[in-house]
Amino acid sequence: MHISHTHQASRLQLNAQGHLRHFLTTEGLSRELLTEILDRAESFLIRDGRVRHEPVLAGCTVMNLFFEASTRTRTTFEVAAKRLSADVLNIDISTSSTSKGETLRDMLWNLQAMTADIFVVRHNRSGAAHFIAEQVTPGVAVINAGDGQHAHPTQAMLDMLTMRRHAGSIHNLKVAIVGDIKHSRVARAEIHALQTLGARAIHLIAPRTLMPVGLDQMGVQIFDRMEDGLRDVDVIVCLRIQNERMESALLPSAEEFFSLYGLTPERLRLARPGALVMHPGPINRGVEIASSVADGSQSVILQQVNYGIAVRMAVLSMAIQGQREQKQ
Amino acid sequence: MHISHTHQASRLQLNAQGHLRHFLTTEGLSRELLTEILDRAESFLIRDGRVRHEPVLAGCTVMNLFFEASTRTRTTFEVAAKRLSADVLNIDISTSSTSKGETLRDMLWNLQAMTADIFVVRHNRSGAAHFIAEQVTPGVAVINAGDGQHAHPTQAMLDMLTMRRHAGSIHNLKVAIVGDIKHSRVARAEIHALQTLGARAIHLIAPRTLMPVGLDQMGVQIFDRMEDGLRDVDVIVCLRIQNERMESALLPSAEEFFSLYGLTPERLRLARPGALVMHPGPINRGVEIASSVADGSQSVILQQVNYGIAVRMAVLSMAIQGQREQKQ
Amino acid sequence: MHISHTHQASRLQLNAQGHLRHFLTTEGLSRELLTEILDRAESFLIRDGRVRHEPVLAGCTVMNLFFEASTRTRTTFEVAAKRLSADVLNIDISTSSTSKGETLRDMLWNLQAMTADIFVVRHNRSGAAHFIAEQVTPGVAVINAGDGQHAHPTQAMLDMLTMRRHAGSIHNLKVAIVGDIKHSRVARAEIHALQTLGARAIHLIAPRTLMPVGLDQMGVQIFDRMEDGLRDVDVIVCLRIQNERMESALLPSAEEFFSLYGLTPERLRLARPGALVMHPGPINRGVEIASSVADGSQSVILQQVNYGIAVRMAVLSMAIQGQREQKQ
Repeated sequence: MHISHTHQASRLQLNAQGHLRHFLTTEGLSRELLTEILDRAESFLIRDGRVRHEPVLAGCTVMNLFFEASTRTRTTFEVAAKRLSADVLNIDISTSSTSKGETLRDMLWNLQAMTADIFVVRHNRSGAAHFIAEQVTPGVAVINAGDGQHAHPTQAMLDMLTMRRHAGSIHNLKVAIVGDIKHSRVARAEIHALQTLGARAIHLIAPRTLMPVGLDQMGVQIFDRMEDGLRDVDVIVCLRIQNERMESALLPSAEEFFSLYGLTPERLRLARPGALVMHPGPINRGVEIASSVADGSQSVILQQVNYGIAVRMAVLSMAIQGQREQKQ
Repeated sequence: MHISHTHQASRLQLNAQGHLRHFLTTEGLSRELLTEILDRAESFLIRDGRVRHEPVLAGCTVMNLFFEASTRTRTTFEVAAKRLSADVLNIDISTSSTSKGETLRDMLWNLQAMTADIFVVRHNRSGAAHFIAEQVTPGVAVINAGDGQHAHPTQAMLDMLTMRRHAGSIHNLKVAIVGDIKHSRVARAEIHALQTLGARAIHLIAPRTLMPVGLDQMGVQIFDRMEDGLRDVDVIVCLRIQNERMESALLPSAEEFFSLYGLTPERLRLARPGALVMHPGPINRGVEIASSVADGSQSVILQQVNYGIAVRMAVLSMAIQGQREQKQ
Repeated sequence: MHISHTHQASRLQLNAQGHLRHFLTTEGLSRELLTEILDRAESFLIRDGRVRHEPVLAGCTVMNLFFEASTRTRTTFEVAAKRLSADVLNIDISTSSTSKGETLRDMLWNLQAMTADIFVVRHNRSGAAHFIAEQVTPGVAVINAGDGQHAHPTQAMLDMLTMRRHAGSIHNLKVAIVGDIKHSRVARAEIHALQTLGARAIHLIAPRTLMPVGLDQMGVQIFDRMEDGLRDVDVIVCLRIQNERMESALLPSAEEFFSLYGLTPERLRLARPGALVMHPGPINRGVEIASSVADGSQSVILQQVNYGIAVRMAVLSMAIQGQREQKQ
């Protein structure tokens, strides 16, 4: 029997009862499960951008394994875990024993013997979180905080929560994703989540050098001009342009990118009135987005950051419960 | 109407009820408010140099934003916040998104969207804490942990607490401040606090190259010889000499500084019997102060460090209450 | 009267009631006290490699002073202290005030004035923990997390706990220690603990360049061939080979070391059937030990890591109680 990669991932992510036990990718997860994540996240939100403090992870040890530096993402996971009353340890990989010749597998086994309950993993290689989830013993949960160009599932889910809270429902939304689709783990995770949650249309807008091949088979529509792709959309997600792309000549210059793909007030008017403006951050003002749009009334960029705490709390608490359920 | 800088600072620091909501500078704060900080700090002290553990900040997130490295000050704030049951995050600025081209304002907005309640800020530019306090949304408090050569208000207040506890009262004290007055944020903050709390006289003692102009208008007395300035004072505050001053030729050498301005047992005898010896630390033995004086019976240098925890607890708890009060 | 180094250490480590107040070395501690550490550690263990969460250190501040980087050991102490509900601070020594010319003693006095209750110390100089224990004020406990080539007492005790749990009792065990005896703080600490707890025989196996002189007077047996030293032992402790040894020509090469001293399945068969295989980690696969042995059924290497948490909890809680008892 042939088991597709998607089925393998789902099997690894879910316990025997079909509940989340790792969170590696949005791919292959059911609409019910994604909705459960959003509902759980919403239960942690209180007014004024505050989040509840809950003892769900009291007595648990969360280890942040960041093989790739990311203060922003690490901080959101650290805040989320502490809000759930966990003990949080940031393991600095560059100074750890891997520099003494220890293999990744040995390092993991050792950290897990130090009574880790959850590993939050960021790695520059696609599939790293997957590999780690296959190595850990039952009872230990793995959360993917971004692996190479593969997936960044908590970012995708915080975007879904933002759309649901500000547009009412994801069902029937028309969403444009603009920018470096090719190198974006955010875009990939987002497309899966949007399709599962019933978005009506997904427009991908990018210069040809930044658009991967084969995406039209995923049921998305591809555009290379903003003027075509933005028409009547309900949500615009701008992706971050990495400076490396300019240096590697995949992109001419920041100025030229902005002139062709920057989200300006004029272009924003092509979208549905009141369309949401989103960005995973950190934003490059005047490159992907005009300052007036980033700070304007349609921007929900800072809400995304805020909901990111609640989504990470949801995923951490669901995974630990999925692990406990399986152990019984 | 002309609003002086002092009034602006006061207005920014206080809520509508006149209570502390940020702590940026001692300048412009009333005697009542400074006394409230000291009283609150004292309530946290228990015997043997221990401090109380209180749930005042339970469920709050304190972010230490240190744009300038300072293990000592950061550690005291971290201890203080944890003693108040806060979740504490140390944000390493050099590795954070500012290196990805994010502006300071964007970084702040993002961190605050991650549900920060208090920012503790250390920056090498004067006015940085001020700028940040103007940017944050209502409900978020900013504590200045030292900005450029401008202010270091928690250091000033721990010095006040030390004087009050060891000399009975600040009222009518004669205080000498010795050393690099020109580049010292401690001196500046201290002069304001001493004057507000009714000190009888403030003697500033420094070589001319390290004495700023215009200070005599602040109601202080200026000396360039220890033998003149120390006479009959109740308290001697030695300031730290930075090595950079020697390198930049503002000072001849460590040895020569000590021979002219070092606090020796002989010079200490010029002061009132039992006069207190203070230093913000870390001390340079044999430069600002003789070892026998630093470790002698009149030295309260280590008590200063200890009271620093209580003062930071006081300021953190008052600011968060000031913010809550205003939101209601 | 002549007081031996051992007696001085014991006196420093114990309070007036004979209870632990610092943990610096296993040398000179009684069988009762070592057994109390093991019993206390065992009380923290629950099934499945989990450890209990206890409020024993609630309100206490533990400072990890690591003058030598060691993510592994620091992490175990951080987990242990947090499981006991302590506030934990990691003091990064390279960026701290010592770089501003502050002496070690001044730094310690300052940190202790910041209300530290326990210092966990790792230093590359033998005797550093000792020196620090002599400097701190009554009430502050010092735990040695490894000092130079002198001692690593928590590693020794977690090895003892591993032997006791997996071989039933340390009494009458025949234990082989293999590898770089000369530079190993683990070996030294282990020999003292094994002898105090009544091990029947200790075999030290090493090439002559890595065997210190004078050890035969410690009541151990010395071998330079694995084939002789492993015969009929109940436990084999492999020590880690540092790459520096190869570089400094004390060892020919990793391959040659493995061919002569590597623990292979064949050599393991020389020991008693079911003999335990131990290693302080991180392991060098194919240098000190064959992968199949490290991962085999007789290996208790990961259990060692796990028990390390419980042993550190035991020592932290006993030392703080020993300090409190003395203060009363």
